[in-house]
Amino acid sequence: MRVLKVNLADGGYPIHIARGALSNPALLAPYVTGKSVAIVTNETVAPLYLEKARASLRLLGVEPLIIILPDGEAHKHWQTLQRIFDALLAARYERHSVLIALGGGVIGDMGGFAAACYQRGMPFLQMPTTLLAQVDSSVGGKTAINHPLGKNMIGAFYQPLAVIADTDTLTTLPARERAAGLAEVVKYGLIRDLDFLEWLEKHMPELSEGNLELLGEAVYRSCQHKAEIVARDERETGERALLNFGHTFGHAIETGMGYGAWLHGEAVAAGMVMAARLSAKLGWLREEDVARIVNLLASAALPTEAPGAGDGMTPERYLELMRHDKKVLDGQLRLVLLRAPGEALVTRVEDETMILESIETSSRH
Amino acid sequence: MRVLKVNLADGGYPIHIARGALSNPALLAPYVTGKSVAIVTNETVAPLYLEKARASLRLLGVEPLIIILPDGEAHKHWQTLQRIFDALLAARYERHSVLIALGGGVIGDMGGFAAACYQRGMPFLQMPTTLLAQVDSSVGGKTAINHPLGKNMIGAFYQPLAVIADTDTLTTLPARERAAGLAEVVKYGLIRDLDFLEWLEKHMPELSEGNLELLGEAVYRSCQHKAEIVARDERETGERALLNFGHTFGHAIETGMGYGAWLHGEAVAAGMVMAARLSAKLGWLREEDVARIVNLLASAALPTEAPGAGDGMTPERYLELMRHDKKVLDGQLRLVLLRAPGEALVTRVEDETMILESIETSSRH
Repeated sequence: MRVLKVNLADGGYPIHIARGALSNPALLAPYVTGKSVAIVTNETVAPLYLEKARASLRLLGVEPLIIILPDGEAHKHWQTLQRIFDALLAARYERHSVLIALGGGVIGDMGGFAAACYQRGMPFLQMPTTLLAQVDSSVGGKTAINHPLGKNMIGAFYQPLAVIADTDTLTTLPARERAAGLAEVVKYGLIRDLDFLEWLEKHMPELSEGNLELLGEAVYRSCQHKAEIVARDERETGERALLNFGHTFGHAIETGMGYGAWLHGEAVAAGMVMAARLSAKLGWLREEDVARIVNLLASAALPTEAPGAGDGMTPERYLELMRHDKKVLDGQLRLVLLRAPGEALVTRVEDETMILESIETSSRH
Repeated sequence: MRVLKVNLADGGYPIHIARGALSNPALLAPYVTGKSVAIVTNETVAPLYLEKARASLRLLGVEPLIIILPDGEAHKHWQTLQRIFDALLAARYERHSVLIALGGGVIGDMGGFAAACYQRGMPFLQMPTTLLAQVDSSVGGKTAINHPLGKNMIGAFYQPLAVIADTDTLTTLPARERAAGLAEVVKYGLIRDLDFLEWLEKHMPELSEGNLELLGEAVYRSCQHKAEIVARDERETGERALLNFGHTFGHAIETGMGYGAWLHGEAVAAGMVMAARLSAKLGWLREEDVARIVNLLASAALPTEAPGAGDGMTPERYLELMRHDKKVLDGQLRLVLLRAPGEALVTRVEDETMILESIETSSRH
């Protein structure tokens, strides 16, 4: 069992990382005892882990309300969110009830946003069951749903009571989703930790095959980075933006291809390649740095080529989609790029041709 | 021009109360200069005041995006909110853009909630144009939409940059809406200010007829109370709950009769009579205190009798609807009652018979 703390002005919250955490009622006890509790999960996660979570709650004398949503990014919209509100209201849950988000990033984003809005805010717990959620989305309080015109456009900053990550859940994670999670892990190395990047290059074959000990270590080190950044910049007014490395390009892929066609981590991987190429064009990375990044992502079985004109994704279309991104300021694109491997910066790129060329070079032909 | 301050941990914000405030660009300048600005208003307010607000913005070099919604509580739901998001996204507004809510309580609640959620939070201004919004809903950061199962069930605590109340807008307010606003004014007197209550009793005929000077004074004194309470308890963990005097009964009327059939202030007036009767039953108010409250509300042309069994609103139906209220804790109803005129308290009422009898006595037969 390892514990990290996200230090925030209001006291912050712990991240518990442990094999078997789902079956450990002691981890849940401080938050749910004597409360009405709802578990929000999806059709894929429910058969695997719902009973474990429910059994832990029953040992604490709590019989949870179960809300099972359809699986996938394509359902991360208002209509699905409404099902959570309907169920909570029908069961007469109050604002002191507790919501548990049991699942991957989509469940965490929607469960968290539902908790943020229900009766103007109810407490909630993140119980992430995918690598992506454990290393990234469950920590830091970003919650959201998608809008047809952009990903995560409607949401809230709303922090959980705690994050409880059971790394045993990674045993059932499909290889494609494991790879998607590794994209965010690689991101931490690229933006702020060269040592970690080298560790990842050394261990990627085993990580990619699902070695639980090494994945547990990757979760821990990723959460350390995330907790540190979030503590310094909860509302993303500065440094936190660095976590969006690869994401502005990636969101364009997700929105342009239709939510769910590309997994978020896959889109981020291809997006990081685009951002690396642009960084090279600006003279910050060498071509061999770009190749190094492409190799590492490829060894994690991640796509390193983005969709191209054949999929309707011309460079101009990318740019149009990117202009909807939340990182736009005064109409100008701000991008997270690399000054060197292990060091990111936020910058405005005034020369659109460079952006278009970097997209073109990195897309499928 | 009078200015109040809502003091909050993050610095708080000003409330400007003035005749002609809408036509004073200096009031807007600190918040909008150099920004993309959207005005959210409705079909009733737009023909009256949109051009004034737009002209002030133009003098500051700002051409606002205009979003006109249908008028009324019946539209305070997700589908209408979505129209705000659609318009902001179509115009590529970013999270540093500014939203102005120009209208009554419904526009303030929806505009504020849209601002709270858009790209996880954009700045916004409240420009209330009804008495109810000027004395109550525009101050304090409560934003929300309704759900078929309960009023204001989905929302956020999200504070504006400033409240700018132009009391000249009260000249066009229909008498029925003026009366509805006076219900919330009377509430402040009843829960915490006996002097103000006496002032209201003295001036109610002129207030009810729309005397602008006296209404301006009522707005100022009401906002003083609201600002003081909100500063002490932003998230309604304690004292702020007193502001809900009459509201748990009132919300039952609004939800039970269908949103919009009763104006919020009308429902609160009838709800305050119910709460006063229950306070009398508990031995805190004398029968003459109840009569005094009924008389004051009646002199404001407010309903003092709630809908009854003839409208399907049996006492049992009230109780059922009240159980959905956000003030429920551990399944028990907590109600705001009066210990004396000018002094409120929050209490659990264990004897349901007393509640049912107070409802019965106060409803139409």
